[in-house]
Amino acid sequence: MVADKNINPHLKKGAFAQNETSVSTLAQRILAGETSALAQGITLVESNSSKDEVKATQLFNLIKPDYVKNPSWRIAISGSPGVGKSTIIEALISENKEEKFAVLTIDPSSEDSKGSILGDKTRMESIGMMDNVFVRPSPSKNFLGGVSSKTREVMLLCEAAGYNHILIETVGVGQSETMVSKMVDLFILLVLPGSGDEIQGIKRGIVELADMVVVTKADGDRETVAKQSASAYKNALHILKGKYQNKSIPTIAISSLERQGIEKLWEEINKYKDYFNRENSINKSRKLQVGQWYDDQLKQAIYKKFLQDPAVQKNLKKHEKMIEEGAVDVWNLLSDL
Amino acid sequence: MVADKNINPHLKKGAFAQNETSVSTLAQRILAGETSALAQGITLVESNSSKDEVKATQLFNLIKPDYVKNPSWRIAISGSPGVGKSTIIEALISENKEEKFAVLTIDPSSEDSKGSILGDKTRMESIGMMDNVFVRPSPSKNFLGGVSSKTREVMLLCEAAGYNHILIETVGVGQSETMVSKMVDLFILLVLPGSGDEIQGIKRGIVELADMVVVTKADGDRETVAKQSASAYKNALHILKGKYQNKSIPTIAISSLERQGIEKLWEEINKYKDYFNRENSINKSRKLQVGQWYDDQLKQAIYKKFLQDPAVQKNLKKHEKMIEEGAVDVWNLLSDL
Repeated sequence: MVADKNINPHLKKGAFAQNETSVSTLAQRILAGETSALAQGITLVESNSSKDEVKATQLFNLIKPDYVKNPSWRIAISGSPGVGKSTIIEALISENKEEKFAVLTIDPSSEDSKGSILGDKTRMESIGMMDNVFVRPSPSKNFLGGVSSKTREVMLLCEAAGYNHILIETVGVGQSETMVSKMVDLFILLVLPGSGDEIQGIKRGIVELADMVVVTKADGDRETVAKQSASAYKNALHILKGKYQNKSIPTIAISSLERQGIEKLWEEINKYKDYFNRENSINKSRKLQVGQWYDDQLKQAIYKKFLQDPAVQKNLKKHEKMIEEGAVDVWNLLSDL
Repeated sequence: MVADKNINPHLKKGAFAQNETSVSTLAQRILAGETSALAQGITLVESNSSKDEVKATQLFNLIKPDYVKNPSWRIAISGSPGVGKSTIIEALISENKEEKFAVLTIDPSSEDSKGSILGDKTRMESIGMMDNVFVRPSPSKNFLGGVSSKTREVMLLCEAAGYNHILIETVGVGQSETMVSKMVDLFILLVLPGSGDEIQGIKRGIVELADMVVVTKADGDRETVAKQSASAYKNALHILKGKYQNKSIPTIAISSLERQGIEKLWEEINKYKDYFNRENSINKSRKLQVGQWYDDQLKQAIYKKFLQDPAVQKNLKKHEKMIEEGAVDVWNLLSDL
């Protein structure tokens, strides 16, 4: 046993079968805040092998009591590519070294191949070395704009490891926004400075998801435009209601480059936490999050179970061949199943 | 019977039971190119009632021979909100009045409520009145960045009605891009003019999906920047390979406002069609599209079937109650099913 037995009273030696010992050790190390164990746990959780899935379930049961005890702040940082998500995350973390941050970033590797055009290896480099920060790039494969089917499980492990802030970097469009908003307590939408064009692009939906709007790159030539954008958003948002009837949606202009507005953003985040705690919204938020998680997992479980049936597999092969030979009537093929 | 019996030899009176007469009439009217019938057919196809689903299947079987005979060009117009998708679609159509266009647009209504902040009712107004154009806004509910679970079926009806170009307006991010790229023959990515910032944002994935890149809003002050962007993209794209090894990806700057570059875009679209026809890629493309459609439909069918089981329904209710009471262990709940 590597870790101290006193760390978690739920983990007693002998309570588990032989093959569970390594999971038990892993759980203890995660609860002790060891980052290498956390990384290993995430890899286990993201694995699709059924052996690993059994182990992951054991792991979750072991960390559950601590997970429930220590909820973190789950914050989504959402916006189009190029809006400056990573830069803002870096700035926020650099200014708050006393907090523990887990950052779930989008891995720039694509579904089809690996890597981006320019060197993305330097992303998050400045914070990746800090003791209070754990950075985990998640593969974009099977991803919906930055949110994976395992994001919730990964957050849970980070919470068990003692990270009190979880930042999810996400490309927020359409359904992925809705998905991520159901996973987090605070949804921050980043937008580029610009004329009325972008404002025209805001849909009620996105606004009803956002708890905060940040106009980025308010530096140099763009400072004036950014401030105009921020007030245009403020006016537009005033017409609508956010998720919480009595809560206005803060709208701020920020320059990560010139470190302008980062303090103000952190202040607004804290005001939001106070509001959230005062209204006891955290429990409501957590229940909604668990419900959504359940629905998502249910769909995956059903599909997997179905595909294991040999008769189904035979039919699927037959249909594949028919499509290869030119069948177009999907509607008829499926009535076979 | 409203329509001429000679329109489609597959539709003979008496071949259908009484309750199928209306579907048979609808099919004839769609094949005759009646837009009101097409709209009605789409509504039928988008309906979730099981009665309508039976009718939709009948409808597809009736139009199938014509659908196979008359494939259209399926073109995705993809890009972030505000990039100018609708404007380019309007410009393209206005310049090509001899072609028949079906335009599947994103309805700006959100999942949570209806309507956008500014009046989006005027979108596509100029083309909506034209004889050669059919515009269908699809609800964003259950949408993945503009692509719905029924987009393929809707395209099929439009093809049966004789539209030889189908333009799908889509907010292309992450998985929705991959989805739409598997539905179309030509994927056009629109980007805003800007500095190297945006180029940095391109991922291999998006480039491997795009068959053409268009830098929009190349007018007034932005013309120079737009042209610089276009050549920066060209250089970046040169390093990578597109979907087709021997085909370079055209990169053009365009101003819908000043009607600059629209002709060039249409020319590039036609060059692409020639290439596609020459390589006989249309058959390959169609087979891939049908395969993907099959996979998507399969998942939906399985889920639906599963939820009809009374034992399953009972379990789901039990779990819902447990979550309401504070259960967080989704991983254990699901092992019940």
